[in-house]
Amino acid sequence: MHKFNFPTTTYFGAGTRREIGEFLRARNVKRPLVVTDKSVGELPLCRELEKLLQAAGLATATFSGVWGNPVKCMAEGGADAYKKHQADGIVGLGGGAALDVAKAVALLASHPGDLWDYECFNPKAKPIDGAVPPWVAVPTTSGTGSEVGRSAVISDEATHIKKFVFSPKFLAAAIFMDPELTVGLPAGVTAATGMDALTHCVESYLAKDFHPICDGIALEGIRLASQALVKAVKEPTNIEARGLMMMVSLMGGIAFQKDLGLTHSCAHALGTATDMHHGLANGIMIDYALKFNVSVREDRFRNMAMTVALKEHSHQSFLRWLTDLKVEIGIPRNLTAAGVKREKLNELVTLAVQDSCHQYNPRPVTEKDFRVIFTEAF
Amino acid sequence: MHKFNFPTTTYFGAGTRREIGEFLRARNVKRPLVVTDKSVGELPLCRELEKLLQAAGLATATFSGVWGNPVKCMAEGGADAYKKHQADGIVGLGGGAALDVAKAVALLASHPGDLWDYECFNPKAKPIDGAVPPWVAVPTTSGTGSEVGRSAVISDEATHIKKFVFSPKFLAAAIFMDPELTVGLPAGVTAATGMDALTHCVESYLAKDFHPICDGIALEGIRLASQALVKAVKEPTNIEARGLMMMVSLMGGIAFQKDLGLTHSCAHALGTATDMHHGLANGIMIDYALKFNVSVREDRFRNMAMTVALKEHSHQSFLRWLTDLKVEIGIPRNLTAAGVKREKLNELVTLAVQDSCHQYNPRPVTEKDFRVIFTEAF
Repeated sequence: MHKFNFPTTTYFGAGTRREIGEFLRARNVKRPLVVTDKSVGELPLCRELEKLLQAAGLATATFSGVWGNPVKCMAEGGADAYKKHQADGIVGLGGGAALDVAKAVALLASHPGDLWDYECFNPKAKPIDGAVPPWVAVPTTSGTGSEVGRSAVISDEATHIKKFVFSPKFLAAAIFMDPELTVGLPAGVTAATGMDALTHCVESYLAKDFHPICDGIALEGIRLASQALVKAVKEPTNIEARGLMMMVSLMGGIAFQKDLGLTHSCAHALGTATDMHHGLANGIMIDYALKFNVSVREDRFRNMAMTVALKEHSHQSFLRWLTDLKVEIGIPRNLTAAGVKREKLNELVTLAVQDSCHQYNPRPVTEKDFRVIFTEAF
Repeated sequence: MHKFNFPTTTYFGAGTRREIGEFLRARNVKRPLVVTDKSVGELPLCRELEKLLQAAGLATATFSGVWGNPVKCMAEGGADAYKKHQADGIVGLGGGAALDVAKAVALLASHPGDLWDYECFNPKAKPIDGAVPPWVAVPTTSGTGSEVGRSAVISDEATHIKKFVFSPKFLAAAIFMDPELTVGLPAGVTAATGMDALTHCVESYLAKDFHPICDGIALEGIRLASQALVKAVKEPTNIEARGLMMMVSLMGGIAFQKDLGLTHSCAHALGTATDMHHGLANGIMIDYALKFNVSVREDRFRNMAMTVALKEHSHQSFLRWLTDLKVEIGIPRNLTAAGVKREKLNELVTLAVQDSCHQYNPRPVTEKDFRVIFTEAF
């Protein structure tokens, strides 16, 4: 087992889930609420976690009302469950959706009013100034990096628009990264979430801000992904590969404090227009989108080619590597293969331009550029 | 100006020293004590800082009783000055010594008794359980990484033995990295401190623990050092190179949370036996010592060779690069050239074996090994 502090205390290694109960007890949490995905809530691993918490002398209850892209009513349902259980802490168990909802539940359990009262871009947003109950992050996928984040991304039920609630108080009290919790993930989910983590690393490495700490973490994350992603997809019980991909997720989540770029704007557009899984959308778009950045970041493409141990250190070889990787792990080659209809083109372009991520792209992206990129990706 | 949080809030860029006063004022510090080196205390840059603090409405006093390797009475002198000034915060200004003393002053100003009551390896150490006054780190050299550290390394006056006082409360409230503060450093100090920062990155990258976050930061620090160290030595007013070397210092300081290795044990021995500057000692020993690790870390030597953009990606080329770098920036080629007498050999070997750093070396180091390494380094 390894312990890190960056800045969240992180326990990494097979079996670390067995430490969660003791960790909470030592911090005076007696009645944790487990907040999890519907699908995870039905798995034996959720039962095992409840038993582990109970064995540590904790009174536990589980709210498993999270599925798909999280919406506000899920957070409200979780907050009701929190109050009903008279909980004093939260265990977020699952993918990025469950972890984001866990943060929102922590907020609603401790602050009055509606979730959107605290939305980042609301000019009249209420301050998150009270104490927020402690929560620990127990990821069961390796993708979003939500475990290290301080944001909850929750969508409005009616408009499907993603809203951000942010507070440094949303930092997890600890992260328990136990690769054994990911061995049951289907290959498709491993591939899509893995591409999400890899895209975080690649896009933050290319983003325009000066942040060599994030650059270093991102590049090392890319190296680990090159060693582990194919293995994690093809050998689901390979604990080493599973562990490395958890680490890539964490490192991507730290690195993108620096920023992201145009691939994410494409992926957000696909999420809104077609409800496509975010990691899958990044995975499909990454090679089409990144080509656009070569002219301003050739040196960094070369460094990435070196880092993933290609013979030829060029942007061509790195982009080819991404394309080959997609094929190898079963990510659709293009949008058509993923079942997206060409009629969506205009909507996708409009949504991508409106998205904020491409503001940090190393090369400015216009509506015309997005049209070229999406057209090629069909 | 750039702002980072890793985990210390860091302001980076030429001119950031002008933000210190406002930062302190916003945190209700009204009477800061500047803790600095004797030599820095005599420089115009110290006068300028005092004026900047006063211009922000702060009542400031300066304690400049730090020189050489810091000893306990310096911390005590600083604590007296703190009380006399009725200070409520500290500005640590200078190299690693001044920053370490600043931490010790913060401790003695807020906790009763003797500094050694709080020494890490004292089995009866008192807990550092009270509030510690806030301090900000303003480095004027680029080497130790003390600005991100949570330890004060202070020597016993009588025995010259280095003692460690540690607390998470010693984390600076903020770091102000202003490369303009380093343009006056003599070439010899720039070279020696720069080699210290580089050695932190190289040794933590090679250290045996699993810590890919630190690995990434270390490797990127090595890249920046390869781009900036020679320039910083040869073009002292090159702000970009000075800034990058400040960043290498910070990154080395973060990365060696992972651990260090045998070069540091050699350098600590040279410090105790000959009072040699720590960075200079690392700079002299690094290529002699690291050769010892090639057999267990060949892949990582290759990665370092790639990272510093050598044509040949091998351990030989990386070690040759280190040796050439030493020559280019004026680090003595070996111990004899540095004026160390051969009679010191036995003492150096004994001290190096006793040092704790080599416990984390990727290959176990025996007394015999240290004898071979030091003999070759003469």
